[in-house]
Amino acid sequence: MAPDFTLDAHDSETAARAGRLQTGHGEVLTPAFMPVGTQASVKTLTPDELIAAGADILLANTYHLYLRPGVETVRGMGGLHRFMSWPRAILTDSGGFQVLSLSELRKVGARGVEFRSHLDGSRHMIAPEDAIRIQDGLGTDIAMSFDEPVELPAPAEAIRVAVDRTVDWARRGLDERRRLRDEGRGVMALFGINQGGVDAAERRRCFESLGGMPFDGFALGGLWVGEARALSLEMVERDVAMFPAERPRYLMGVGHPVDVIEAVARGVDMFDCVLPTRNARRGTVFISTGRLVVKNAAYANDPRPLDPACDCYTCRRFSRGYLRHLFTAGEILGMRLASIHAVSHMIGLARDARAAIIEGRFQAFRAAFLTRFQSGELLSPASVPVRRGSPGVTESASGFPRSGPRGSTEEMLDDVE
Amino acid sequence: MAPDFTLDAHDSETAARAGRLQTGHGEVLTPAFMPVGTQASVKTLTPDELIAAGADILLANTYHLYLRPGVETVRGMGGLHRFMSWPRAILTDSGGFQVLSLSELRKVGARGVEFRSHLDGSRHMIAPEDAIRIQDGLGTDIAMSFDEPVELPAPAEAIRVAVDRTVDWARRGLDERRRLRDEGRGVMALFGINQGGVDAAERRRCFESLGGMPFDGFALGGLWVGEARALSLEMVERDVAMFPAERPRYLMGVGHPVDVIEAVARGVDMFDCVLPTRNARRGTVFISTGRLVVKNAAYANDPRPLDPACDCYTCRRFSRGYLRHLFTAGEILGMRLASIHAVSHMIGLARDARAAIIEGRFQAFRAAFLTRFQSGELLSPASVPVRRGSPGVTESASGFPRSGPRGSTEEMLDDVE
Repeated sequence: MAPDFTLDAHDSETAARAGRLQTGHGEVLTPAFMPVGTQASVKTLTPDELIAAGADILLANTYHLYLRPGVETVRGMGGLHRFMSWPRAILTDSGGFQVLSLSELRKVGARGVEFRSHLDGSRHMIAPEDAIRIQDGLGTDIAMSFDEPVELPAPAEAIRVAVDRTVDWARRGLDERRRLRDEGRGVMALFGINQGGVDAAERRRCFESLGGMPFDGFALGGLWVGEARALSLEMVERDVAMFPAERPRYLMGVGHPVDVIEAVARGVDMFDCVLPTRNARRGTVFISTGRLVVKNAAYANDPRPLDPACDCYTCRRFSRGYLRHLFTAGEILGMRLASIHAVSHMIGLARDARAAIIEGRFQAFRAAFLTRFQSGELLSPASVPVRRGSPGVTESASGFPRSGPRGSTEEMLDDVE
Repeated sequence: MAPDFTLDAHDSETAARAGRLQTGHGEVLTPAFMPVGTQASVKTLTPDELIAAGADILLANTYHLYLRPGVETVRGMGGLHRFMSWPRAILTDSGGFQVLSLSELRKVGARGVEFRSHLDGSRHMIAPEDAIRIQDGLGTDIAMSFDEPVELPAPAEAIRVAVDRTVDWARRGLDERRRLRDEGRGVMALFGINQGGVDAAERRRCFESLGGMPFDGFALGGLWVGEARALSLEMVERDVAMFPAERPRYLMGVGHPVDVIEAVARGVDMFDCVLPTRNARRGTVFISTGRLVVKNAAYANDPRPLDPACDCYTCRRFSRGYLRHLFTAGEILGMRLASIHAVSHMIGLARDARAAIIEGRFQAFRAAFLTRFQSGELLSPASVPVRRGSPGVTESASGFPRSGPRGSTEEMLDDVE
């Protein structure tokens, strides 16, 4: 029942690799970017739009779905796939991170986590066994071990305790899956999560235990939470060096295009992040040449698509000027169209990396990607030749105002939320 | 250039009729329900979703687009069709109603209306000539005359003044279109709007003037603004009796299914209303058997689609339980899916009426529709057999909780907003 992971190609100059992960709901091509559907919905998008964007897997969240609508409702409706009408693979995060970051009055003990719901203040207790049973009840394809991330910076002692607990909970989660399988359930894959923050020794100590356990894949947890990019990437290198080559490797919560490509170069196979879609809903998207703040007034009369190099639905059909109008007017369609581009762009980037690895040109792809991404080309609205007229409209005497509001510069948002 | 309106069939027992209106952007089948895209976006929906719902025409608003993004921006981007990527017909409301209902400090005089923008307080003046020129600049297929609705109840004198002004502005608008045509522009159709509130004599007096003007169609304005349904329908009968048979008749702002069918029976051809989509965004939709408040807890475990008799995207793919979850969780996808159903349902209703008229069975259709709509059938979640399990999920010992929260009754919203 464990997912079958096949490696199709290894890059000769880096640790990058291309693979295929078989699940109960189809094949996942790696490197893979997984859109995030926290509450059984990738915000603003339909399943068909995700498929059109190339998604073969998405992520949902155990903590959120456990609280609302509840696992019995999802199970009664035929499981998460049928509930949200998503025919392809689903990975569920175990909820460890959300319990830590969202719930109130949480008490972490050896048995598990006691907390109050961020929705209604109700009391709950989730033990690592519960986390596995809930994910099985949701009908996920890939479950994650219940872990304890630490809020950094943390004293060495706190990190050590969290690592010990993560290892203990990992073992208990695997035991629970074994019990589920004895009952004829628990068909899902289960990934372990390596913790230890940016303490290389603790991460090593964590994996010395985890690595011996029969997980179907391993995740890199607790990274990209505020530390410098170089340090994060160093942790990625160290973790990946310990992880078994034949299992998929998943870097949790990472989704900046540069980080994705740099982590792929270090041997990571799977990614998820809310950043691209969250930014999109606020009017900012990544394009091939950098970050575009389409809600800026500078784009009000720009007839080009978000990214002329992109062939997503949004870029095929709509202009920056129209998207800018939708954001200014508070129209939900703006969030939708930007989200479609954002998801297509990240999945496309992972697919392009995969093709480059298979064709033995990953280093050239990586260099070209970085140069282009940092170029800022296409971002300036200044040099746009204006389309004039249309079949149904005759030009006015005054014509189109060529000098739009062009002084404004890129508004730079923080990369990681 | 005027749209060619062909009548395909007349019902023998009522005044209902089926027609086809040719525009510069395709044919509009009547009776027609026009979704409302006030700010160049039918809220939450893409053009492709509207086409899938059967829309061949939509409505946009002159007042809103004049203020934001501005007619020069729309014209510079190639006109409204290209701006919003909508290939089919567009009717623009002239803005008279919105100036009255939204703007601040408005001053209505013989010349036109002075007002402050509801967006930024800026001062504007729109004369009836401007309204025509703006609509031409947007590139609309069907423009509406600039009228002065009155806020009811109003003294007889106020209604009389508004009617006189509406007639004067109608003539000036037609003169302006003639000037535009002399410049090689103004290809759009132009509809006159009959006013007079629910004062039958004033409506008659208004049309005695309007009826002699070369409008391409006539609209019924100032109705369904709070008066009783019977009185509104009486006004419809009286107006339609005066209107020329060979021109399209448009009942503005009406969109309750019962009102649409009753007005079709009285000879109306076109409708628009924000009600179905506005309600949908709040979790309430019309289905064939009445009004469904899908956000109600009663539907949390209901595996049926919104309307089992509907074949829209939403009803083909998603359950009430999932939609209820999306609304509870505040997910935008809920608003989208409900809006898709709402638009499909209204357009489908108009199409069904058209087919019934053509096939000579409109009276039977009307009777069956009313009986079914008032039946409330399918609205109760109580009798639902629960689907159990799915290929990927094994049942728990406890199984699905059959007794959901079923006590709650329909929450009835006001029909007309």
